Amino acid sequence: MQELVRVAVDAMGGDNAPLEIVKGAVEALELRKDLKVILVGPEETVRAELKKYSYDEARVEVVNASEVIEMAEPPVQAIRTKKDSSIVVAMKLVKNGEADAFVGAGSTGAVLVGGQLIVGRLKGVERPPLAPLLPTEKGASLLIDCGANVDARPSHLVQFAKMGSIYMENVMGIQNPRVAIVNIGAEEEKGNALVKETFPLLKECKDINFIGSIEARDIPSGYADVIVCEAFAGNIILKLYEGVGATLISMVKKGMMTSLRSKIGALLVKPALKQTLKRFDTSQYGGAPMLGLKGLVVKTHGSSKAVEVRNSIIQCVTFTEQRMNDKIKAGIQAEEN
Amino acid sequence: MQELVRVAVDAMGGDNAPLEIVKGAVEALELRKDLKVILVGPEETVRAELKKYSYDEARVEVVNASEVIEMAEPPVQAIRTKKDSSIVVAMKLVKNGEADAFVGAGSTGAVLVGGQLIVGRLKGVERPPLAPLLPTEKGASLLIDCGANVDARPSHLVQFAKMGSIYMENVMGIQNPRVAIVNIGAEEEKGNALVKETFPLLKECKDINFIGSIEARDIPSGYADVIVCEAFAGNIILKLYEGVGATLISMVKKGMMTSLRSKIGALLVKPALKQTLKRFDTSQYGGAPMLGLKGLVVKTHGSSKAVEVRNSIIQCVTFTEQRMNDKIKAGIQAEEN
Repeated sequence: MQELVRVAVDAMGGDNAPLEIVKGAVEALELRKDLKVILVGPEETVRAELKKYSYDEARVEVVNASEVIEMAEPPVQAIRTKKDSSIVVAMKLVKNGEADAFVGAGSTGAVLVGGQLIVGRLKGVERPPLAPLLPTEKGASLLIDCGANVDARPSHLVQFAKMGSIYMENVMGIQNPRVAIVNIGAEEEKGNALVKETFPLLKECKDINFIGSIEARDIPSGYADVIVCEAFAGNIILKLYEGVGATLISMVKKGMMTSLRSKIGALLVKPALKQTLKRFDTSQYGGAPMLGLKGLVVKTHGSSKAVEVRNSIIQCVTFTEQRMNDKIKAGIQAEEN
Repeated sequence: MQELVRVAVDAMGGDNAPLEIVKGAVEALELRKDLKVILVGPEETVRAELKKYSYDEARVEVVNASEVIEMAEPPVQAIRTKKDSSIVVAMKLVKNGEADAFVGAGSTGAVLVGGQLIVGRLKGVERPPLAPLLPTEKGASLLIDCGANVDARPSHLVQFAKMGSIYMENVMGIQNPRVAIVNIGAEEEKGNALVKETFPLLKECKDINFIGSIEARDIPSGYADVIVCEAFAGNIILKLYEGVGATLISMVKKGMMTSLRSKIGALLVKPALKQTLKRFDTSQYGGAPMLGLKGLVVKTHGSSKAVEVRNSIIQCVTFTEQRMNDKIKAGIQAEEN
């Protein structure tokens, strides 16, 4: 029998826990027979949710955790003091080798801190970045880093470029992914101090396909596969992507309701438009992986529904089966030598 | 007779010069009787364009400039060596008090460098920011700074907040404008080193209405009137705004052409949709003012058509008549005392 990939899921994380989390886990089990899900949370609550579904019981485990870390809690303190919280218990399973990956929709800060403090960094990795996939006109690009570390150094960005490149090649199946650094102009001499220092280092990297700078304007068209930046800039890019998209879509919808003529038209374009906008929806790709840890940590959106939870869990299966961490370790070490 | 506001226009700047520039200038003259336009460029070329229109000749002057600064030229060198370029000649008119303002669609770098080196900073202004208006669901917000200075210090950001606030109140007519700093979370303790240092300084500022942090997600909804950030972040925000908007609109248009049903619908929604999207078009507000100079410098988009040039010129009239520079000087000095 094929070995199962074991994913520990925080059953209590996010706005729709535990209902949508458990539902997503059951859906993932249905889609991947090489998956085992470990649901972590108050045992009775989790089992009550599970009862709603029929599923392969041999591939589900429930691990009790009595506490929950709330969204507003200071992350470091929460991870240190709430030893029996679903995040801490689930991450310890990864640390101890009882699970291969963690998926959580709870507090981003707590997930990032837990990833660093409990799961721990791979040897040689200076900082583990959070790397969501952004939808583009052509498919998806990896934005790396996007929230794990502010005030990064050039050597961090070089590692992000390498890890992102390995991810896109192995998990997303993109040959020789194009790597670009976020900048305010196309020329090498442009940029702030961090970018100016990082640019020549990326140019020297032999094991990535560095194509130079990318201006924010060119991100949505899919100009690069791996978009390297420090976390403050990455956070702006991710959130503005969501914000401009949501505002424009809401304005388009409202605009179509202004006259009888356009209302009739709206009914006719609706199915085609829905299909189009789905392609630009960040949730389709599941959560954002935190790379460079001894195990995979995936952070899904706090508002995740079953579909995002399911996609995040499935992402863990691909990641683990592709032996991504071995590849990242090899990539980082190659750079050091 | 009312005194005329004198605007020096680079007739050779941008992709559509001189045609759209001269056209926009003539349109502005038609709309504002308190305006005089000084067109700067090769005299014969400019006069040949002018011949196409009828206009109040008493309020137009042509000043000869034989050279043109190209988009790709290194800005500092271009400003220093091309003494007879349209940008340098036009800016000197502002410096010498022969014009109140400058409008140009040419190289952003050259306009910014020229603003600093030729027009010069107001006393007390540490760095002059570039501050475009972003369209939002509710109207427009001022993004400050967006390209003039990377690697800014906290004291620069405080001045940006004050200048932006004065601009929104006096030029856009917004009472007690809400000022926010771009951050990666709502809490005061979040952010990179620059934001953490700047936040308490803004809180102490008595003459602005500081409402705290703004996440990029909330910019398009119009959560704040003045959005303060350093130029690297501002550049990302401005360009991603354009990029996501353009990609989504092109995807919506393509999506509506996928079936006969949606094609018919598209015809019906088109007028309403056009009206909606116009509200989200950055060009409606004219160019971005560079604040804190001894005179106004307005940079309009390189692809500007007559309408943007016209709006930029009219913006200069309001700015000058509102005695904005006196107000900025007073605001900056109040802070120093």
